[in-house]
Amino acid sequence: MIFERVLVLGCGLIGSSLAASVREHGLAKEIVGVDEKYELMRKKNRFFDKIAQSLQSFEEADLCVIAIPIEGIPDVVKELADSRSPFNYDLITDVASNKKSLLEVIDELKQDSKREFLSKFISSHPLAGSEQGGWESASTGLFDKTVCLLGTPGMQSGGVHNVAQDQECSNYKQKVAKLERFWEGIGCRVEHFPLEEHDQFLSIISHFPHLLAFSVGAFMSSSDYENISKTIHGTGFKDFTRIAASPPSLWADILMENRNCILSNGKQWLESYKELTHALEEGDKRRLITLISKSSLWRNSLGKSKSSL
Amino acid sequence: MIFERVLVLGCGLIGSSLAASVREHGLAKEIVGVDEKYELMRKKNRFFDKIAQSLQSFEEADLCVIAIPIEGIPDVVKELADSRSPFNYDLITDVASNKKSLLEVIDELKQDSKREFLSKFISSHPLAGSEQGGWESASTGLFDKTVCLLGTPGMQSGGVHNVAQDQECSNYKQKVAKLERFWEGIGCRVEHFPLEEHDQFLSIISHFPHLLAFSVGAFMSSSDYENISKTIHGTGFKDFTRIAASPPSLWADILMENRNCILSNGKQWLESYKELTHALEEGDKRRLITLISKSSLWRNSLGKSKSSL
Repeated sequence: MIFERVLVLGCGLIGSSLAASVREHGLAKEIVGVDEKYELMRKKNRFFDKIAQSLQSFEEADLCVIAIPIEGIPDVVKELADSRSPFNYDLITDVASNKKSLLEVIDELKQDSKREFLSKFISSHPLAGSEQGGWESASTGLFDKTVCLLGTPGMQSGGVHNVAQDQECSNYKQKVAKLERFWEGIGCRVEHFPLEEHDQFLSIISHFPHLLAFSVGAFMSSSDYENISKTIHGTGFKDFTRIAASPPSLWADILMENRNCILSNGKQWLESYKELTHALEEGDKRRLITLISKSSLWRNSLGKSKSSL
Repeated sequence: MIFERVLVLGCGLIGSSLAASVREHGLAKEIVGVDEKYELMRKKNRFFDKIAQSLQSFEEADLCVIAIPIEGIPDVVKELADSRSPFNYDLITDVASNKKSLLEVIDELKQDSKREFLSKFISSHPLAGSEQGGWESASTGLFDKTVCLLGTPGMQSGGVHNVAQDQECSNYKQKVAKLERFWEGIGCRVEHFPLEEHDQFLSIISHFPHLLAFSVGAFMSSSDYENISKTIHGTGFKDFTRIAASPPSLWADILMENRNCILSNGKQWLESYKELTHALEEGDKRRLITLISKSSLWRNSLGKSKSSL
């Protein structure tokens, strides 16, 4: 038992899976949720002990996890950081897959609010998800053996007040350690990663690959073989296209939020693609083998290190 | 028990996995192999009852499976179809992932040889494989729940002598049924598919996706995040890039052999990719949702039909 009460703001796939995992691993006495879609979920979403429509229902919590869609994050951060707000949350984290708007809104906070908010806030990003969104798809296994990135605003750049260097340092370090135990408790491997580089890195290992997968899915959906491809295919094709099924609205948001990084990755990647098609056009088998070998070598060493998934 | 003796020509990943599966499911009294790399495998590759260096060692077999790399197929077909050859194989099939050179060499056979060869030959393509090539990676599970495409040269076009319409029709149908039972016996679902369209279809569901995956792998291998991506990533990334690890030389052959179809698919697919990046550049979220929805809808209906994997 790490916490008395965990409050999850946003009861979708991630929020509800988190609630289920917290309960399964006995990490908190009480797990409560807040969601705009309260009316839809009332008496149905049983992953939480209680669900309410507004934060005001739960003014106290040891841990508050912001698990709402990205576009809502700035307003929530402003509300939580407001010194007039009634909320007493010991530790605050988010699970957003892009950190741009989070960093921007923190940067815009008034000095006192910022200092107070940052003394309680550590950003998280569990690299978990499913092509099936929504709380109905929630499961306790979602975080099992996944990586959770932790990032501290201002630890890497001078842009944000650097909490770690002031007198609250030791108190803050305890909170970091507590959050690490929380994520490890539900099955994650925790890795610290600079928040300022987060979106660029995520573009490479997740957002850009999703864009490519969507382009394959869109292409397939207008192919002459659209229907037959659904029943005749190998496991490679199934794996390669799995993320092409991801929820459209959620992913449009993620792609939009990180579009500069994604478009820049796209330009660099297109060079690799053109090199391959050029070798194929020229019938240059030796060049083809060289390029495929680069790919194969890289992918064969994926996940082979001890600390990997 | 369907066969007395099954002869597999080519003892690599597919050939050896076939041998292991035939033995496990008790489909033949004896399973023998022929491979150029005989010396390397002697006394090591235990998937076969016997392995020899040349076809001459096994002049009789109920079933001969050609499982060698594509470039060797024309010579083997010529040898097997040669009326002066000593081989007495009741049923002949191949497992090639491209059928272009097979169809070409059959078309070039002299009329008598062609007639004789086609009375015994049915083409197969089990959609099985692994990113780890070589007989050492062979396993009995490789074909389990995969699709095996069967195709009969000349059934769809007039280009090749149409065996099914002559007096040997019933005899030939029995062979087709026997081959169906063979593939089903090792765990495949058999689907008949026009041989003439085989390469175009395979480009869509396998070869072109591999080309794209290789381009992602090559891009990743030269990224600033090359190393960290190996230990920090989600399951989506792992699945999406799995086929990027496929054996370079084997895949250079496959891509070269089917390059016209692949390059043509590439051009069509690039339009879908450009549409997506254009919507992203323009910040056109509605268009983005429409395109991702096409992808998501298609992929969500993949494998949902009863007969699927």
